Amino acid sequence: MNKIISSTTNPLIKSIALLLEKPRARKESGLFVVEGRREIEMALKGGYRIKSLLFEPEIFDPAILGDVLTAGAECIEVTGQVYQKLAYRESTEGVIGVFEIRDTSLKSVGTLSENPVIFVTEAPEKPGNIGAMLRTADAAGVGLFVVANPTTDIYNPNIIRASLGALFTTRVATASTEEVIAWLKAKGFRIFCAYLSAKSVPYYHVNFNQPCAIVVGTEAEGLTKPWVENADENIIIPMHGSVDSMNVSVSGAILLFEALRQRAKK
Amino acid sequence: MNKIISSTTNPLIKSIALLLEKPRARKESGLFVVEGRREIEMALKGGYRIKSLLFEPEIFDPAILGDVLTAGAECIEVTGQVYQKLAYRESTEGVIGVFEIRDTSLKSVGTLSENPVIFVTEAPEKPGNIGAMLRTADAAGVGLFVVANPTTDIYNPNIIRASLGALFTTRVATASTEEVIAWLKAKGFRIFCAYLSAKSVPYYHVNFNQPCAIVVGTEAEGLTKPWVENADENIIIPMHGSVDSMNVSVSGAILLFEALRQRAKK
Repeated sequence: MNKIISSTTNPLIKSIALLLEKPRARKESGLFVVEGRREIEMALKGGYRIKSLLFEPEIFDPAILGDVLTAGAECIEVTGQVYQKLAYRESTEGVIGVFEIRDTSLKSVGTLSENPVIFVTEAPEKPGNIGAMLRTADAAGVGLFVVANPTTDIYNPNIIRASLGALFTTRVATASTEEVIAWLKAKGFRIFCAYLSAKSVPYYHVNFNQPCAIVVGTEAEGLTKPWVENADENIIIPMHGSVDSMNVSVSGAILLFEALRQRAKK
Repeated sequence: MNKIISSTTNPLIKSIALLLEKPRARKESGLFVVEGRREIEMALKGGYRIKSLLFEPEIFDPAILGDVLTAGAECIEVTGQVYQKLAYRESTEGVIGVFEIRDTSLKSVGTLSENPVIFVTEAPEKPGNIGAMLRTADAAGVGLFVVANPTTDIYNPNIIRASLGALFTTRVATASTEEVIAWLKAKGFRIFCAYLSAKSVPYYHVNFNQPCAIVVGTEAEGLTKPWVENADENIIIPMHGSVDSMNVSVSGAILLFEALRQRAKK
């Protein structure tokens, strides 16, 4: 029989609430939280190790938990009140998983696919934007998604939610800008930075048919100097409008899909 | 001396609160609300007529209101309490404008630029997505932004906010799908629909160097039958990932900027 928790002040429930709210709690415990059946399945498929699975038996049918149970999760029934304390979604799915964080250092990056495109986003701030970029990276099949100079950890629940689980289907690394640049250069990647300067060229004039990294900065500040100075080419998306800039996830998508277009054509 | 309002139950304040919340209030009065100095300036620049301007003198300096005053707005001082009732933003700017709605029927669309690209979004639901698409449309310099089968009016404050004012710099029309199709055909536009079928072609194989409309549906449902059947070509963005789809504003941007790329090359 499953363990049952009916108190919102239960230590495990309080620790999961902390994992949802505090980056430090995630870092110290090495754990993070995934809500929803589809996202949990994607995390498992992506090779993430599950530790606990909490479900509200009136909403979620444990019968479809077969895979999860064999994946070694401790299964815990919780009452509606306890579930509501942890759940974000209005149309709730009644199931929450606690997973182990993965090493996202550049050292942990194994063999990449042949001639990959790497997407780098420097210091992105909004979880919604990071999630949208992960969706695009998944759709584009990038070899690696890098967050340079991260301002939040990648296991932020708002990022997971906005990515629709693409966080789990995309290889992700985080490191300082200096480390990422050194790593890209050591591996022989061309670096194309979205940056406006007198020497910048329209993005469609660049040859993406080689191992390369597409690098975008924040909407407010753009990229930092090290990127601009180490770029093989600084590129721009020619704009025709009155509003200053496009959303960074939109700009990133335009650049990534131009790389794919060139590669498909070839 | 300016009129001063210090009560949150003042009839004008209550009517503005309704304009913010209720599409019907906007429709019946023919008015809508714009918050923030930059957005108000963009609306004025875009030719929208201002009716009233409310400001909180401790936050906003009326000295920079010169243009607005000559634009014929009734200027009203409000207390902090009244302003907070109406304001959305946390980092508030202390100024709100009430503007007259414009005719967005297809009949009202005047002469378009030569060889324009038109962007059509059918039944978009999320104001954030509509705002993002307006930003992209502005950046791409589209000739016309059309909402087919709208589910909300375009003067929804969340759309204005998400568009960063691009709503005011982009020509916008709304109509039923049937009307939009008939109008596009009568004007001789080629219709390219983002739609997956056995006959769909990758978007970069289509010739965008002619007057054309790029049409996108919702993420959940895609486009309705009339669009698919009346398309000159149904197009797809080849995907490589595990997550079902990209955000609709991202897909729209990839298609629009491919059209611009082809035209720049030519």
